[in-house]
Amino acid sequence: MKKILKCESIGLVLVLFFCAALMADSSSGEKEVCATTIESMDTFEWTAKAPGVWSAVIGHPEKVTYLSYAGAPPGIAALSKMPAAAFPIDKQQTRGLIHNNLAIARIPLEPQEKLYGLGLQFQGLNRRGQIYHLRTDHYKSGNERLHAPTPFYISSSGYGIFFNSPHFISIYAGVGNRKDSPNLPVIRDRNTDRQWQSRPESDAVEAFVRADGMEVLVFAGPTMLDVVRRYNLYCGGGCLPPKWGLGFWHRMHTKANDQKVMLEVAEFEKRDFPLDVIGLEPGWHSKSYPCTFEWNEMLFPQPAVFLQKMNTEGIHINLWENPYVSPEAGIYQQIKPLCGSHTVWLGIVPDYTLPQARQILTRQHENEHLALGVSGYKIDEVDGYDFWLWPDHAVFPSGTSAEQMRQTYALQLQKMLFGMFRSRNQRTYSLVRASNAGASAYPFAIYTDHYDHHGFITALVNSSLAGVLYTPEIRSARSSEEWLRRMQSVCFSHMTQLNGWSSNTKPWSFPEVENEVRDIIKLRIRLLPYVYTAFARYHFEGTPPIRPMLLEMGFGDKKDVTDQYMFGDCILVAPMFTGQKSRTVILPKGKWYDFYTGEAAGGGEIITVSPPLSKIPLFVKDGGIVPMIPAVNRISQLPEDVPLEIRHYGRSPATTLLYDDDGETFDYEKGRYCWLRLSAKAKPDGTLNGSVSKHQGPYQSMYHQFNWNFMTQKR
Amino acid sequence: MKKILKCESIGLVLVLFFCAALMADSSSGEKEVCATTIESMDTFEWTAKAPGVWSAVIGHPEKVTYLSYAGAPPGIAALSKMPAAAFPIDKQQTRGLIHNNLAIARIPLEPQEKLYGLGLQFQGLNRRGQIYHLRTDHYKSGNERLHAPTPFYISSSGYGIFFNSPHFISIYAGVGNRKDSPNLPVIRDRNTDRQWQSRPESDAVEAFVRADGMEVLVFAGPTMLDVVRRYNLYCGGGCLPPKWGLGFWHRMHTKANDQKVMLEVAEFEKRDFPLDVIGLEPGWHSKSYPCTFEWNEMLFPQPAVFLQKMNTEGIHINLWENPYVSPEAGIYQQIKPLCGSHTVWLGIVPDYTLPQARQILTRQHENEHLALGVSGYKIDEVDGYDFWLWPDHAVFPSGTSAEQMRQTYALQLQKMLFGMFRSRNQRTYSLVRASNAGASAYPFAIYTDHYDHHGFITALVNSSLAGVLYTPEIRSARSSEEWLRRMQSVCFSHMTQLNGWSSNTKPWSFPEVENEVRDIIKLRIRLLPYVYTAFARYHFEGTPPIRPMLLEMGFGDKKDVTDQYMFGDCILVAPMFTGQKSRTVILPKGKWYDFYTGEAAGGGEIITVSPPLSKIPLFVKDGGIVPMIPAVNRISQLPEDVPLEIRHYGRSPATTLLYDDDGETFDYEKGRYCWLRLSAKAKPDGTLNGSVSKHQGPYQSMYHQFNWNFMTQKR
Repeated sequence: MKKILKCESIGLVLVLFFCAALMADSSSGEKEVCATTIESMDTFEWTAKAPGVWSAVIGHPEKVTYLSYAGAPPGIAALSKMPAAAFPIDKQQTRGLIHNNLAIARIPLEPQEKLYGLGLQFQGLNRRGQIYHLRTDHYKSGNERLHAPTPFYISSSGYGIFFNSPHFISIYAGVGNRKDSPNLPVIRDRNTDRQWQSRPESDAVEAFVRADGMEVLVFAGPTMLDVVRRYNLYCGGGCLPPKWGLGFWHRMHTKANDQKVMLEVAEFEKRDFPLDVIGLEPGWHSKSYPCTFEWNEMLFPQPAVFLQKMNTEGIHINLWENPYVSPEAGIYQQIKPLCGSHTVWLGIVPDYTLPQARQILTRQHENEHLALGVSGYKIDEVDGYDFWLWPDHAVFPSGTSAEQMRQTYALQLQKMLFGMFRSRNQRTYSLVRASNAGASAYPFAIYTDHYDHHGFITALVNSSLAGVLYTPEIRSARSSEEWLRRMQSVCFSHMTQLNGWSSNTKPWSFPEVENEVRDIIKLRIRLLPYVYTAFARYHFEGTPPIRPMLLEMGFGDKKDVTDQYMFGDCILVAPMFTGQKSRTVILPKGKWYDFYTGEAAGGGEIITVSPPLSKIPLFVKDGGIVPMIPAVNRISQLPEDVPLEIRHYGRSPATTLLYDDDGETFDYEKGRYCWLRLSAKAKPDGTLNGSVSKHQGPYQSMYHQFNWNFMTQKR
Repeated sequence: MKKILKCESIGLVLVLFFCAALMADSSSGEKEVCATTIESMDTFEWTAKAPGVWSAVIGHPEKVTYLSYAGAPPGIAALSKMPAAAFPIDKQQTRGLIHNNLAIARIPLEPQEKLYGLGLQFQGLNRRGQIYHLRTDHYKSGNERLHAPTPFYISSSGYGIFFNSPHFISIYAGVGNRKDSPNLPVIRDRNTDRQWQSRPESDAVEAFVRADGMEVLVFAGPTMLDVVRRYNLYCGGGCLPPKWGLGFWHRMHTKANDQKVMLEVAEFEKRDFPLDVIGLEPGWHSKSYPCTFEWNEMLFPQPAVFLQKMNTEGIHINLWENPYVSPEAGIYQQIKPLCGSHTVWLGIVPDYTLPQARQILTRQHENEHLALGVSGYKIDEVDGYDFWLWPDHAVFPSGTSAEQMRQTYALQLQKMLFGMFRSRNQRTYSLVRASNAGASAYPFAIYTDHYDHHGFITALVNSSLAGVLYTPEIRSARSSEEWLRRMQSVCFSHMTQLNGWSSNTKPWSFPEVENEVRDIIKLRIRLLPYVYTAFARYHFEGTPPIRPMLLEMGFGDKKDVTDQYMFGDCILVAPMFTGQKSRTVILPKGKWYDFYTGEAAGGGEIITVSPPLSKIPLFVKDGGIVPMIPAVNRISQLPEDVPLEIRHYGRSPATTLLYDDDGETFDYEKGRYCWLRLSAKAKPDGTLNGSVSKHQGPYQSMYHQFNWNFMTQKR
């Protein structure tokens, strides 16, 4: 028998020696060979990290991981409130190997399992049966080069796996049978057997990174939603944006000056359109691509005055930037020694793993932006497209590999910029062009150039499976129908943004639908208490505010539906796409009601709806309670006493909690928040009666007047 | 000042330590940092390998390279006949670095340079300004996943670079400016400067592999054709197929049995169609996908009898196979311990770097195929498509990495199967689904599924820049026009093959164009002496038989033309595509003539041609001499004395050489060949007179009767 050599990285030189020997034609006879069996792989040793969270390592991973780059402390307290759970898969079959400079993991799969997640995907939901070479990049097509290539998947069997290694990663999701797989499919003859398969299913997920080791994390369920919640909580809990961030965002044309901004704000007011955030695009920099981060004196001669005026009017200013530093920037000389070997658009690339580099940028930003009243950033161009990033062989002064930099640069920037706001006890809601695993706690919405409406909605649906937020921002349209349909979608997303940086569009750019656009934006504003509560659940409980249907009870996981989703606690959104006069909607089990009328819509069935152009189909589950404020044009200027309309759908008694806090600071972390209990109870006559009581927390909510509206009962 | 640390691989642990230290928030002050400058890279030390060929290494590469996998000895003698040449680029600016487990090379570029090559590309010619992450794969789109991802490029400045490292490789071809690039473009402001570029050009090619080192080879010109010749000669010289291989190939439907093959052969004869090779598809195996390599007794009960009959009729039999071994194969148990960890279509994957594994397969093939009269193979499914290959983390018993296996498996198989024929002193002409650098000497034509006629021709044009052969095989068509246009193209390619494995098509499948199809195939047969001589030049001089126009004198390199090409010494082919009634043709400087009529066509200009459906536009350069035989239906049954028609085009005196040998054995390597001198000399009256004389070599050619045909002069 041959002597079996287990090929450890530590023995690599030895292995290479054997290979060379084996390959020489002259060699023969008994040689040491590398073990090629599952049996020869190491069995993972799992350590409990929190209730329902375990970790194991193979080899000797670097100390830095996605979680350490993201740097948000695990929400152990919140996790501890979740039920204890048993280790959800067969430990004996979780295996690892270090071989030829690869860290390899093998996680078993049952035949019926489906897999979800693996990044901000623009196509489909089920990931089983595909191969993913995940890397941060500008999405063009396929499933590999993603703005957020999170190596985290959720199984329909109710557990999740996270390969916590900040590298390019290859994941064979139920593809690639080992010769000794315990469940090898039947081998068939292609010539004669019609059941021959071109892609026989495998009984495992296998993944590798090119590194000396890798950490793998397992998240228990029992439900897929529980898996997602545990993941988000382990990443620090979902972010809680400021209230104003959940209003309407409008990005100016790149060459707009302060006067144009002020005129635009006035035009919004004149036309009675809500407006909470104005985004300034590259033109605000004195030079851009690469950037100076300094105000363009021609366009913004008095930025402090401009910002003060905007803030007084309740308008928040968000600044576009990319991270590549122009030689004309004041920080250039100081930051230059802390930059990588290569440029992007000829700008130098700071190594923000170095505290000195972070200090240089944040000091400049704090003094020249935040001190003036800037509310957040849009971090552009950290997504690659290969051409618009450093090459993968660039050298960084810290020694961090270019690959690792690529996978984590967006995390580094989110952490750094978020940190500036946090140290001022001021929340931000911002944008970022890329992200990765571990980012749940950062209030940054991803945006992309892939301007396909279906793809946008699929990405929105998948974002919750990747622990990131996403805005299907509206930029332009070929018709008023498309304009309105896209506007409806973005009003039911993480961030409601019109981005006119190049198109120079306004909400009223299609006059035929100006009223309908205003209506849908106002509906979004009216839903603020509902949406804000959904984000509070994201923060405190890990429940994403937008969720694929498959996370919804009663929907099942058999259908990979990417064109409808849950928005907040109880609203099902079924966007209409250009050209559609009607569409089908899959309603989960139970009873569902039309959001606008309270009429019964069905349940546990496929219905067809033919809404007018002015309406995006919205359905509320039985007992759904939707708190709404009156429409306002500035969330920051809400009156102190806001009357609350509390809608109830269906005929069942129900209770929900409404979250509130100051909406602007991090004081909620110190307990300064409250949950109100909204209860619809049955009266003796069988009809429902609504009441509101304090559930928890010392904060004095802005809601005092409550008007219950029993949408179904009143019909 | 900071102390600069040059990050060598040998110091990797040290570097990682530094990184960790630098990344800790608590660290500050003076730290060692990795050098990020060109200056800190190593300057390559170049060693002359042959006239006009130099090698350098960075780091400590594995001993195995593409050239060692291919294993053909460099044609030093032939290279020595080429002119000496100076090192063609600035040595001081050729730099290398080992950093973070990457071997990185930097080769300078001048602003005007264009780059060609980088594999069997299906789009375009000029590779400058693109990024290539080359890996062996099934081509779908893009420029990265290629059947032959050869990391070899040719500069318009007349030199070539070959990264001789059998790994996935990333090549930034004039993309990615270092912060200290000597020729950094002007940095512009995107806001205000219209000359701002989204992809500023860089002054270097930078490439890396994930390995401890890399060999880089430089090939001198002075012309681009010289670069290609030196590359091919260094790879052992181009292959010389047997004469029969240059005839007509027909692949049977996968379920055909011996009777059907014999009926098909008879039908070819009855319809007067040439036929030299019959290809048998998966059905000939007793089981396929995975394969047994054993005859299906139902379809071929007496393979020896069948093969003898075919060979007697002058028909050569080519066997399809993929390398994945079925448990039903006789060799299964024996080869199993020598296989990798993973299966492909559930078949095991032999590690053919192991001599024992090669011995098992070749013994079986020799006994059960070659001894019976099989003439060659079609090696399928070595191109990946990720799904149809082992995963990149598979383990092979020799310790060879899965990545290296993927990049070289097609080379290993070509070498192994070619070796069987060679040891019988019997030439083969075969097919392979993938290849890589170093394969010039192997008589295998690549074929692909990407069934786009334009893409096929582009691949054919690019094949010569990758040192591989390619057949734009015909399979099916949506119209008789398409059928004929594709048939015309494949008759002017490396291998004239109709592949009916699935479509069950025959040359006469479109009756409306049966005569035209017969005519073009017969023209291909008639050109045998011309085509065979072109392959002889490939073998002895490295000149590819099919060449992009940019390798042709007088064409220039300004135009990236992929829809016309040179075929042999002097014929320009301009294929017509379905729907075209006319097309433009760019004629190089000089005078060019219509192949069919001898009429002047122009020169140094763009002409428009409107050929009838029956004609593929062909042009011959001034003084072009084209030797042709009469049409025959079996090249192997050519009579002993073949009358030669020698066509001459234009009015200039000219001389060319005609190659001949036995066409079947390797005796030409022992000098048993001849070159005949065909001369058209001016008579006193100014007209031309043709003569033939022996130029070199002891072989007695089959050509004795010479009929000169002065195509232009006679008009």
